[in-house]
Amino acid sequence: MTSSPIARPVDPPPRLLMGPGPINADPRVLRAMSSQLVGQYDPWMTTTMSETSELYRGVFRTTNEQTFVVDGTSRAGIEAALVSLLEPGDSVLVPVFGRFGHLLTEIAERCGAKVHTIEVPWGEVFAPEVVEQAVRDVRPKVLAVVQGDTSTTMCQPLEDLGEICRRHDVLLYCDATASLGGNPFETDAWEVDVVTAGLQKCLGGPSGSAPITIGPRAVEVIEGRKHVEAGVREAGDVERGVRIASNYLDLAMVMDYWGPRRLNHHTEATTMLYGARECARILLEEGLDAAVARHRLHGGAMLAGVRGLGLEVFGDVAHKMTNVVAVHIPDGIDGDAARAAVLHDYGIEIGTSFGPLHGKVWRIGTMGHNARRDAVLTTLAALEQVLRAGGAPVTAGGGVGAALEVYAA
Amino acid sequence: MTSSPIARPVDPPPRLLMGPGPINADPRVLRAMSSQLVGQYDPWMTTTMSETSELYRGVFRTTNEQTFVVDGTSRAGIEAALVSLLEPGDSVLVPVFGRFGHLLTEIAERCGAKVHTIEVPWGEVFAPEVVEQAVRDVRPKVLAVVQGDTSTTMCQPLEDLGEICRRHDVLLYCDATASLGGNPFETDAWEVDVVTAGLQKCLGGPSGSAPITIGPRAVEVIEGRKHVEAGVREAGDVERGVRIASNYLDLAMVMDYWGPRRLNHHTEATTMLYGARECARILLEEGLDAAVARHRLHGGAMLAGVRGLGLEVFGDVAHKMTNVVAVHIPDGIDGDAARAAVLHDYGIEIGTSFGPLHGKVWRIGTMGHNARRDAVLTTLAALEQVLRAGGAPVTAGGGVGAALEVYAA
Repeated sequence: MTSSPIARPVDPPPRLLMGPGPINADPRVLRAMSSQLVGQYDPWMTTTMSETSELYRGVFRTTNEQTFVVDGTSRAGIEAALVSLLEPGDSVLVPVFGRFGHLLTEIAERCGAKVHTIEVPWGEVFAPEVVEQAVRDVRPKVLAVVQGDTSTTMCQPLEDLGEICRRHDVLLYCDATASLGGNPFETDAWEVDVVTAGLQKCLGGPSGSAPITIGPRAVEVIEGRKHVEAGVREAGDVERGVRIASNYLDLAMVMDYWGPRRLNHHTEATTMLYGARECARILLEEGLDAAVARHRLHGGAMLAGVRGLGLEVFGDVAHKMTNVVAVHIPDGIDGDAARAAVLHDYGIEIGTSFGPLHGKVWRIGTMGHNARRDAVLTTLAALEQVLRAGGAPVTAGGGVGAALEVYAA
Repeated sequence: MTSSPIARPVDPPPRLLMGPGPINADPRVLRAMSSQLVGQYDPWMTTTMSETSELYRGVFRTTNEQTFVVDGTSRAGIEAALVSLLEPGDSVLVPVFGRFGHLLTEIAERCGAKVHTIEVPWGEVFAPEVVEQAVRDVRPKVLAVVQGDTSTTMCQPLEDLGEICRRHDVLLYCDATASLGGNPFETDAWEVDVVTAGLQKCLGGPSGSAPITIGPRAVEVIEGRKHVEAGVREAGDVERGVRIASNYLDLAMVMDYWGPRRLNHHTEATTMLYGARECARILLEEGLDAAVARHRLHGGAMLAGVRGLGLEVFGDVAHKMTNVVAVHIPDGIDGDAARAAVLHDYGIEIGTSFGPLHGKVWRIGTMGHNARRDAVLTTLAALEQVLRAGGAPVTAGGGVGAALEVYAA
């Protein structure tokens, strides 16, 4: 019996998760998620869903009526947006500056879209005029762009893209999974039509719920793809597009489920809803600007700290996300062995990397609940010790010292 | 501030959920879900995933290597199975005996499959020879069938379908969402190729994680649809089918993510994984046969109880699921008003109904953590009181009395 997992309760070891996400959940979020369930159409439940929409309007900085959570991980939110917007044969433009641009490309291809990409080397972002030229050339239905791509730590400036898209009659979709809550994001001011996110980065919750907001231009496109059964057709229902290829991720149905008609769709993932709601409450209690400033402070302290150790930072630091830094692995150090030592000896997780950066950089995050002084300082101290033990020429005390200077400023 | 949801923590009212699901989560499951997160490739995490697979092999009664959870609700599991098995143009046969048969049909249509249905009136199930004749006529690639359809409370016998499917070289997919853990299910003995489920019924957890098991014949079909990037192609990788239309629900990728290659896919919904793991532990500690017997006992007591009140039961009771009963709403009673009174006055939720049964029956569940004497008796007492207050001719004390006789037997 002792060899069987039946005998072993869930009992995770203590970990400080300082990678590119997931990070530790705020204990308040876990407490909220331990609340008992209620029925799907209980008045308390429908009120809680409406309140969750209201809270995420604050998080996304939007007045979009269609603001809710998709019941799946951030990737489910991305796919829901793309499969609901893109019909087979539609043209989509994806500026690729890291791994998650490739993911948008891959998902859009599976939707049957004609995918056009532009690329910059990893560690760079796009100038808006480059994006506009591509929009002009491709004339896509949708411009799909990642805000913060943790694979490179770059944060694509979005301020100008909405206006460009309006001018060319293009829909703008943004994947803000890794950035929302820790980097400025203005859905309405930037005129972004659809935004998706996840809880497991700056929002301080577990993966498994994907906040989304959908503006009126996108709602019209998605509603136009509804195939309404004759019996429930109402005045104003339209049916002109190709039916959405997914039922689970059909945003037309999910909008009717969250909206006043409350049409039955999936069984709400109530525990994840509780978590998503609490993440938004925590963020809005702190204030969105204050939360971004906190991420900037602790991300800045981590950046100063790794440089203070004598390590080199990857990429265009002027366009780095606030909440993650990529650090070149020093010569002579086995990156995976060092990460394993940090985990084993200190219970701290830092991140590996993908694609062209694999084996070359570590990625260190400071986000959500873990964007804190103690988390930054202990990570720098642990990293210093492991690098020293490995024989790397680090500056003794240089990491913690440099971070403390940031905090003292 | 008090008018804003920012000021209001998650604080659900106490409810006893005696509808067709979701039901109350076992408090042990909620406690497991309050555990802190670890990183996705932490050795503890990969062990926990492997243990979860092992536990669900026990729940599904299978030796299938490919046994894991899909990160979404039970509907995500259904769609993952169908979109991964069915290529556009493939033929699928769906025996429809309630609402969830229509759901399988709808999802298969969105996969581009040619969908053939056979139907029986609500409240009945299919004789195996009827299914076999349809298999012979249609020669489908996949037979997709619901085990327990809560919309009618019917439980389709599956014992013979696997053998029929083998004989005709057809894959058998079964949606066991509403039945697994409370009704007999034998994946291997019945030769079912793919089975999906959810936590929110007899497994005693919240919605949001979809256990799935995939047998070797189905694995071969799904693996054949992988589009492997040249750089990571390995000996044995094949590519002959049409690419799966979803990334998030692409079971070929999810198998590689759960399997020994542990290829990165989505960010695990760790809290839901903890919950799914604990649901399986609780069920296997009790013993699957004992859990089915418990559902049969308490479902039988509820059935006797509603009859003892003088109410009429809907459908072919010989083929009823153990865990839910549909009860005709007595003449002169407003079904929704009575349900609201049971909820408001007693904190107990019983279910409404859909389609041809809408307004005609209530659905009362006894499942998972709520398949208990106190839950059955208090529900019968509350129902009696509300029916009396509404002027229905119920037998005084007849509900609780009849249930107690079942327990005394």
